[in-house]
Order: sequence, then C-alpha cells, then structure tokens
Amino acid sequence: MTKPNEFAPAWQVAEAIRSGDVPAEDVTRAALDRIAALDPKVNAFTDVTAERALTEARQVDADRAAGKTLGPLAGVPMAAKNLFDITGISTRAGSKINRELPPAEEDGELLKRLSAAGAILLGGLNMGEYAYDFTGENDHDGACRNPHDTARMAGGSSSGSGAAVAAGLVSLALGSDTNGSIRVPSSFCGTFGLKPTYGRLTRYGTFPFCDSLDHLGPFARSVRDLALAYDVMQGPDPRDHACANRPAEPALPSLNEGISDLRIAVLGGYFSTDGMPEAAAALAPVAKALDADKTIDADGIDAGRAAAFIITNCESSRLHLPNLRARADDFDQDTRDRFLAGAMLPASWYVRALQVRHWYREMFAKLFETVDILLAPATPFPAPLIGQRTIEIRGKEMLTRPNIGLFTQPISAIGLPVCAVPVFSGEMPLGVQVIGAPWREDLCLRVAGHLEKEGVAVAQAPSGF
Amino acid sequence: MTKPNEFAPAWQVAEAIRSGDVPAEDVTRAALDRIAALDPKVNAFTDVTAERALTEARQVDADRAAGKTLGPLAGVPMAAKNLFDITGISTRAGSKINRELPPAEEDGELLKRLSAAGAILLGGLNMGEYAYDFTGENDHDGACRNPHDTARMAGGSSSGSGAAVAAGLVSLALGSDTNGSIRVPSSFCGTFGLKPTYGRLTRYGTFPFCDSLDHLGPFARSVRDLALAYDVMQGPDPRDHACANRPAEPALPSLNEGISDLRIAVLGGYFSTDGMPEAAAALAPVAKALDADKTIDADGIDAGRAAAFIITNCESSRLHLPNLRARADDFDQDTRDRFLAGAMLPASWYVRALQVRHWYREMFAKLFETVDILLAPATPFPAPLIGQRTIEIRGKEMLTRPNIGLFTQPISAIGLPVCAVPVFSGEMPLGVQVIGAPWREDLCLRVAGHLEKEGVAVAQAPSGF
Repeated sequence: MTKPNEFAPAWQVAEAIRSGDVPAEDVTRAALDRIAALDPKVNAFTDVTAERALTEARQVDADRAAGKTLGPLAGVPMAAKNLFDITGISTRAGSKINRELPPAEEDGELLKRLSAAGAILLGGLNMGEYAYDFTGENDHDGACRNPHDTARMAGGSSSGSGAAVAAGLVSLALGSDTNGSIRVPSSFCGTFGLKPTYGRLTRYGTFPFCDSLDHLGPFARSVRDLALAYDVMQGPDPRDHACANRPAEPALPSLNEGISDLRIAVLGGYFSTDGMPEAAAALAPVAKALDADKTIDADGIDAGRAAAFIITNCESSRLHLPNLRARADDFDQDTRDRFLAGAMLPASWYVRALQVRHWYREMFAKLFETVDILLAPATPFPAPLIGQRTIEIRGKEMLTRPNIGLFTQPISAIGLPVCAVPVFSGEMPLGVQVIGAPWREDLCLRVAGHLEKEGVAVAQAPSGF
Repeated sequence: MTKPNEFAPAWQVAEAIRSGDVPAEDVTRAALDRIAALDPKVNAFTDVTAERALTEARQVDADRAAGKTLGPLAGVPMAAKNLFDITGISTRAGSKINRELPPAEEDGELLKRLSAAGAILLGGLNMGEYAYDFTGENDHDGACRNPHDTARMAGGSSSGSGAAVAAGLVSLALGSDTNGSIRVPSSFCGTFGLKPTYGRLTRYGTFPFCDSLDHLGPFARSVRDLALAYDVMQGPDPRDHACANRPAEPALPSLNEGISDLRIAVLGGYFSTDGMPEAAAALAPVAKALDADKTIDADGIDAGRAAAFIITNCESSRLHLPNLRARADDFDQDTRDRFLAGAMLPASWYVRALQVRHWYREMFAKLFETVDILLAPATPFPAPLIGQRTIEIRGKEMLTRPNIGLFTQPISAIGLPVCAVPVFSGEMPLGVQVIGAPWREDLCLRVAGHLEKEGVAVAQAPSGF
C-alpha cells in the first residue's frame, strides 16, 4: 500500500502505518499541516495538541520498530469535541466560564480507549456552548463552518467534529449527542456518525449536559472506521452510572453479513411530512436500496419530542444554576436564555415529561417487535446559512434552531441507537438516520455498511479541502 | 385444633378451616360481628363488604366439602387500605374527590392473589388522604384511633390497616408505604408490617401517590403470616413498570433457618440520637437479642430524607394538579397544603433530589457489602395524641407530623426492604425496623421470626378488644 491521502479511511491509514508504508509521524505532521492551512476556513479546532500528537506518533513508530503489535487505530489522526477531558487543557465545553477550570489531569475515558488502540489526538473541537445547540454557532469561539459551503452551518452541537472529519482534517472525531448533536452535524457535513444506545459508551471524563439524555459517539468517513472506533470504546465503566453493566458487543465482525435477514421500514408520521423536499430526496434512495417499502406510523412522536425538550431544559439548567445566578452575562446569549427558561419550569413539568418518556419508550419497544430498523431523515433540511434565524418549511416560516432537531430529538429521547449516513442528492449533503432497537448498534452499522457499499451513502470530499 | 380466637394467627385460622375444625363462614361471621361491635372504637373500616365476604366464605366451605385443596390462606379474614381497588366500590384513597370515580370493576392485583389463596376480604380501611400522611387523621372519614389507646393516633397513612390488625378485626391487612406508611402504623399499633423492596409487589389496581417511592405490603400479627401473605403476592406483573421482571423468591421456606450466619448492625447517626428515649428503649432489647453490638454510621441520611420529601412532593402534586386547580376546597386541609407546596417547586429541585437519591442508593449499596441487616427504630416516639400538632423531642418542640417519618423516610427513599417488628417496652408499642439489602426480604423476615420466637417482638392484644 502507498501513503494514504487525507480522505483515506482510518483503517487504511492504520494499515499503511502497521505495514511500514508510512511512518505515523509523517501522517501526524501532514494532518497538523492540513489543520494549520485549512482549519481557518472551517474553525473546527479550538485547541491543537501538536506536541502531544507528535510524541504519540513517534511512540507508535518506535513500537513498530521494536516489533510490538500495533493497535487497530495505530497512528490514526483523531480529535474530540472540547467537552472531552484532554490532559493539560481546561475542559471548556464550548463555554467561556469553563476556561477557568483547572486543566484536566487525564483524558476522558473514551479518548483513553482510542489512544490505547493507537489513535493520535490532534486537539479539541469547536462546539455549541455547553452542547445546548444545533447550529454550531458560538459567541466565544465563533461559528464552526460547513466544509461543503463555508457560509453554512456545520450543525451542532458537535460542530467541530462534523467539520473536521468532513474536511479531512482528522479521520475520526468524538462528539456527544443529547438531542441530535452527533446526527445533525453528520447530516449537515455529510459524514457518518454513530449515536449508540443510551448507556453504551462511558461518559466518564466529559463535561455533562443532560444526564438522562447524554450520549457519546464517533464520527468517521467510512462505516468500517465507525465500527472500529465504536468497538474499541465499548465496555462497562462503573464511573458512569448509565454504563455500569453492559458488556461489550463488538459490531465489526458482522459488518459484512448483508441485510437480507432484516425487517426495515420507513418511519411515517411527521418524519415524512414535516421536512423540506431535500429530506425526502435523501431518504428515497436509501429506502429503495434497502427495499424498505413499508411505512410505520408511530404514535406520540410530538409528545416524545416535547418530553425531550423539557427534560433537557430542566436537567441542564439545574447544572448551571449557580453560574446563571452569579454570572449570566458570561454565557453565550442564546444558550443562557434557554437555561434561564429551564430554571423557571415547575417540577410538575419535569415529572410529567419523565412519565411521557416512559410511555413513549414502551411504545417503541412494542414497535421493534415487528421491525429491526427504522429509517428517517436526520434533519428536516440541509445546512442553513450561518446566522439564519428562521427558515421556510413547506410555506411556513419557522425558527431555525429548534426545528433542526425535529427528527433527531424524538429518537434520542429514548436512547435508541442510530447510525447517521450521508446522502448527497442535492448541492448540500443531508443525512439519514438508520435507527435500531436498544443495544442493536450492530444492525444499524450493518445497514449503513450496505448503503455505503451500494454507493447510496458515501462521504464525499468537499471541494477546496 | 379447636376454633381459633380473634387474635390467632392467620395460618392457624386457615389450618383450622382446612382441617374442618371450623367453617370459614363461622370465622367470617365472627369477624363481621367483631367489626360491627368494635370498629366504632377505632374507626378502621370505611367499607365493610359483608355480603361478598360471606359468599366467598361459603365457597371455601363448599370447596372443602367437594374435596378440593384449599389455599394457604383459606378463610382468613383480611381487609385492604382503601386505595386498593375493590370490585364495586369507588377507590377513595382516603379522599372525598375520588368517591365520584366509577366503582372499580375488579380487585387490585394483590387482593386477587390473596383471594386466590383463600383469604376473605372484609372491607376497605381508613387512611390519610391520598396517602400523604403519617397521623391517620382524615377530614372526610375521621381519625383512625389506636387500639392500644383510642385517644392516640393509629399512625398513617395505612392507619386502618394497622388498627384493624392490632384490634383483631382481621388477621391480615394490606397497606402502602411511600415514606413510612406501613411501618409507622405498625410501630404505633404494635403489629408486624412488611415494606418489601421497591418493585417487588405489583401496584396494579391501586390508586398511586408517588410512583418512584410507592410500595405495597402486608400487616399481620405474626411473622409467619406476614411471610405467607408476602409469598402469595409475589411475582412479576407487566402492568406495573417497577414490577415487570422480578421473579418470585419465596421467603417462608427459610423462616426457621435462624440468624447465626447474618451480620447484623445498628444504624447510628441520627437514628440513635434524634428519637425520644422510648425509641432507644424499643431498639435495645432487639439489638441485644441479635447480638448486634456494632453501630454503623451512614453518611447523608439527612440528604436522603430531604430527597424523599421533595420527590414525594413533586410527583404527588403533579398527579393532583388538575383537582388542585379546580377544587382545592375538596381536599383534606393538611394534604392540600402539602400538594400546593409541591406544585410550586421548581424542576431544578426535583432534578437535584433524583441525583441525591442516586448517590444515596450507591452509598447504601456499598454499606450492604459489609452487613446483612441494619436495625433502627421505626418511629422516633410512640403514638402521639390525635390532633397533637407539636411534640417535644429531647427538649425541643417540633412539628409532630413530618417528624413521625424521621426514621422511615430515609430507608424507603431507596426502596430497601424492611420488616417492622412490634416492641412493647412502655405503655405504648414502638416498632423496630429490620432493614435488608434490596431483594432480601427473606433475611428481614428471618430476623423478625427470630425476634418473635425469642419473645422480644410479639404483637399483643390491646385491652378492650
């Protein structure tokens, strides 16, 4: 194998390094050079850990020279949303306030696991403040821009993760998803993104947003990379209450099993009526490639989404209450207003929202007795312009930000695993959610892999990167 | 065996009926006569189901005559707190408002299971309105009175359950316990009471108070009766989300195994300092009989109790919000004021209370790695006078009602199983909590059985009944 290019998949990069075709240090230097040259166009990075990266890369090369077995992600350039602890850096979580925190003394657990598999951390990534965002805009760090059109949003809150992977600055990125924050930037930037089942991947060593809805997961430009990174990160961690008991269930081995045994349907109801034509255009080839001619209407999607709104608002504002009281002006303006609203909600709303979520989870559990995979667009429209506060959907002018999560929020509300796959049917990409029953990430990834192999969902390099 | 008297244990009554020493109809008639004659003294019953009881009793006798095998509770007189659905009666849950509900079309599930074991339902029992009570007082039905001193409280909210069993009006009663509502009346009335692990017994067919804290359980005058009733009621029920999966784990078989293998300790901290001397006097002989010379101080009991207060307040007021808005005057005055307070709490309090409860549960889980059974008084004082709004504890005047739950609330907050055992060391009884790790009701019952056998905790007939 020759030296892989910037858009080569991570597994190929690791293979080239393992086989000695290219030193890890060269790959790392090339990536750092690309970041220096191109990141100013997208503003994906908030911190670049060049020194650390080079040290780690040299270690990979030294290990190889010493005949040691290299990990499955040996030398792969990666980066993490800046709510992950990175040794020596204050975990800013997109905020100004957190920069006063002492530097993290160790990496977040998932970063550690990726590092142990050989991946090289290049830095921390831009994000919406405290992850309460769908746009990728940020008062403190500036908006993250979409590599496919830098006038457009990268999507949030894991904006930098989507942009950095789409722009070929790294092969892998870590993000978090509470209401759509992995799937939205995946959709807008045209990458693959995995939001695993709630409780699957440990959140130890990350800054929280909303405990009962927070998920972490990887971004990549190929399904195999996504599965590789996911498998490496699995396994219980008693330090995250949600992730204390679930054993690892590797997905990679079944990736090429095909999909002939799977019952796949399209989610109906508002998923098929409330998006722009671009959303339908993205879904159509995916459904066709999977022979998903059945549509399933689920009840109470609105109620499930409303529950997610309220739960997010209440749990997150509780977390930030002391700072809201003491220094409201130090927040991002948009984020602050959302937190303040949450601080004033009565407990009865939250109690009710938990009840609704419970009912809604049971409803979906029943639904998954008859189907293995559900399909829905990831966003109701492709990336809007940065700063665009309203958007016209089917003739009606709506607020942009809250409606970005229209299709993602009802799914994460009950922690279902989703693989977002990139579809390029118009000028801008738009993702499709491949949704599984709890703990069936393997099926989501198998379907995503099939779509990639068939050429229906493929990450494309943006022009100019 | 001859005809059992009114205070004979339930298993003896069933044995006498099974062996033909006495017809079930005679036992039922005698119990109905006792209720007619003596209930006016204690006000335990709100509904007497005489006709149904006689019909059921005759069926037991007919089954016996036909050579059918009778259940383990054949012909045993029982009654249920009036938040259990009873066919043909509106489930009042101690309220005025609920009397407008249509009559229940079937019994609550636990009642069905007891009936299937042969027990005969004599009626519904008085309770604090909507179970939000520790006193047994009730604006609509009048206070339930303590059989050991009818000027005193029976304790709440399962007041009628404690009083009816203590007075020998029934052999078994069902109650509910959210913050102490089985253990408090057990303590004040001198009965045994079992509050099982949260999720052990199905709540299907009962009127809820606070979903994440509500437990149901039996009252009896002997440990064997308690275990018998408990075993009969066990088993999963998908209609109660908390009780969907736990298989039955019968406790009766191990009742006589003794206690030599158990690590038993006394709960220290405020459990040993904040009660009246009567509480210490009740605990002492129990600890002595169990060789429990070790005291364990648990952290954050105050915080755990505060969490239970807030969770109760928020969840229950949410349930009653429509009626609080529309017809606040129809509530019991004291209950209404508590619900109104809960309706005004901010969501952040509830979110925080859930976090504290989670931490507190983990803390107790660690504690139970070193001990099998913990002991604490069930109430900080014996039954106060009915209407007594304040009480002096160790020189300090305190509000009576909220302090009744001082020792029970921190235990149910995390759903631990408890058997309350009656100790008669002064003029009035006072119970001791035998507390186990989650799902170890069997150990609680074994210890209670040992204490009963040793004569340390024995239900005593009140004079005049």
